[in-house]
Amino acid sequence: MPLIQYLSRILFDFGALSGLGEEIARLGIRRPLLVTDKGIAAAGILTRALDAAKPFAPVLYDATPENPTEAALLDCLELWRDRGCDGVIALGGGSAIDLAKAVALLTSHGGALADYGVKTGGSEGIGKVSPQIAIPTAAGTGAEVGRACVMSLLDGRKSVAVNLNMVADTVICDPELTLSLPPQLTAATGIDALSHGIETTCSPWQNPPAAAIALDCVRRAAKWLPIAVQDGGNRQARWQMMMAALMGGMCLQKALGAAHAMANPLGALGLHHGTLIGVLLPHVLRCNEGHADAAMSELRAAIGLHPSAALHDWARDLVAQLGLPGTLGALGVDAAVLPEMARKASQDRLSQTNPRPLTQADYLALLQGAA
Amino acid sequence: MPLIQYLSRILFDFGALSGLGEEIARLGIRRPLLVTDKGIAAAGILTRALDAAKPFAPVLYDATPENPTEAALLDCLELWRDRGCDGVIALGGGSAIDLAKAVALLTSHGGALADYGVKTGGSEGIGKVSPQIAIPTAAGTGAEVGRACVMSLLDGRKSVAVNLNMVADTVICDPELTLSLPPQLTAATGIDALSHGIETTCSPWQNPPAAAIALDCVRRAAKWLPIAVQDGGNRQARWQMMMAALMGGMCLQKALGAAHAMANPLGALGLHHGTLIGVLLPHVLRCNEGHADAAMSELRAAIGLHPSAALHDWARDLVAQLGLPGTLGALGVDAAVLPEMARKASQDRLSQTNPRPLTQADYLALLQGAA
Repeated sequence: MPLIQYLSRILFDFGALSGLGEEIARLGIRRPLLVTDKGIAAAGILTRALDAAKPFAPVLYDATPENPTEAALLDCLELWRDRGCDGVIALGGGSAIDLAKAVALLTSHGGALADYGVKTGGSEGIGKVSPQIAIPTAAGTGAEVGRACVMSLLDGRKSVAVNLNMVADTVICDPELTLSLPPQLTAATGIDALSHGIETTCSPWQNPPAAAIALDCVRRAAKWLPIAVQDGGNRQARWQMMMAALMGGMCLQKALGAAHAMANPLGALGLHHGTLIGVLLPHVLRCNEGHADAAMSELRAAIGLHPSAALHDWARDLVAQLGLPGTLGALGVDAAVLPEMARKASQDRLSQTNPRPLTQADYLALLQGAA
Repeated sequence: MPLIQYLSRILFDFGALSGLGEEIARLGIRRPLLVTDKGIAAAGILTRALDAAKPFAPVLYDATPENPTEAALLDCLELWRDRGCDGVIALGGGSAIDLAKAVALLTSHGGALADYGVKTGGSEGIGKVSPQIAIPTAAGTGAEVGRACVMSLLDGRKSVAVNLNMVADTVICDPELTLSLPPQLTAATGIDALSHGIETTCSPWQNPPAAAIALDCVRRAAKWLPIAVQDGGNRQARWQMMMAALMGGMCLQKALGAAHAMANPLGALGLHHGTLIGVLLPHVLRCNEGHADAAMSELRAAIGLHPSAALHDWARDLVAQLGLPGTLGALGVDAAVLPEMARKASQDRLSQTNPRPLTQADYLALLQGAA
């Protein structure tokens, strides 16, 4: 089985989940807290994970909300204390993985999440956290190799903690877990993975190893995402999309761009991240034309497009082919919120790494174009 | 400046050396031991490093042998104890970097190097070692991001310790340090970097992130190595070759093949590793034809060769163009040792990841072809 090791130890293949018990033991965990959600439990994936964890009997927290909250975190911390846990397993998407990171942080460092914010400098003091295993159940965010933990605090503010010491010790990527993902969710998560490769390729930051990984992410996702959406049982497509998502997560240190800068505030309205990315990405690609020529050429070659093809046309057609919504209106976004979204996007740190510098007015035009 | 972070924190650019003092402080080192060799000192690079280390005043060990030995290690350990060191800086090639790794290991774990051999299972118990900074002065081995430490023991045996906890905390890649490297050494180290990309691309182990990095290593090295050799003052060529070497080191987890399996025992005769690789690589590429078709196609595309071109012809011509020796005879290898070399190569663990399984007889034929 491919063993990939950059910051995390990554077990990647069909059947990788069966190694869970061994990995728990390897990390010296005796009583893991398993963080998941009710959808994963209903899909039968939780049962398989609990089987694979034997002889360990994880303490279960299955109420992870769609976007992680401090309230859920406090419930997890209470379980951890009451049941004597000493390590955490995330089984799910980015939300479960972020929640598990926060659990690992606070059980090792104490205090409250707000103490560790990246804006206040609190993130810098984060040392090695409690042992963590991340098991993604969709091919999308790449959060399984991420160093950030984004969460809504009790007072409604957003907390972002970022430190390499929060990267999961072990990642188990088993494409088997994604075989039953419905087409709509496959498309919406997969377009996020693809966008990580595309936006990091276009980012002006120099990081050749990340750039090489990003381009290969695009190559895989552009080819296999339509197949995974059309035929969810296609094992090769599932394997390739899970690899694309992993690589999309690994290249994030080269930084993202305007599509994510806009998706961040829009996501706070309760909209699905990947679906937003599908709407926004074609508009961002069009807007960036002429500002990242070398990157765009590489992208066209990786996707297999003609050297003179317009990437934004390809992206728009792909989103339509995948059955994803093509406008913000289709997602129920009221045009009245767009000026505020434009303001927030222009202040998002990811805006700084869009190849074309964009003002608040530029963002408003982009959002109105996507309305 | 590009900050690259997989296992190590990597500062990469012209002038990166100037950040040395800050990096020493960041690691909490107060009294670093700087491990280098007399050639580096004579080239004026040591003086620049000592300047950059201010306000810290490293304790100096400048007698690193061409291949690291336990005797040199014991001298370093004595210096460390006598002078109260608490961290180690390697300034040099693979030898200085390996020696520094051994210093970091034994000053944190005690015992003797032989206790930590990978064959005896001793490597598995290696935890976090003393803080380490690696500063490569050539673009070749990629040892700056390596996890292994190879050393000759006092009794003549070879010790190989391997653990991710031995990876340097911080790597400073400053292409400025390679500007004065003479053409012959530029060629001999650069062909090693190129070969890391080529052999890992051909390895049957699956590791897509490493494969993407490997192919980009080949793309850079194939284009820029001849330029760096011809015009050592070409700054872009030096930057690109240092990046190729770094990427060549980063992709090694996908494993090497027959050229390195043969270069290992031949190197023990006292021959330069990269020069050996230059002789052996064309023969290995010819021998592997038909056994790694997809990889070979990718390599041809990365190098810019015609889809039907023979990679071994290209490699042979490149070695000649770089002014490197083309036969083992030119290196003074006696034909009488070849059977023994073939036996050792066939037992080398890197032989297992050559795309074409090779017997001892196959290796003898290869070596005789290269004689």
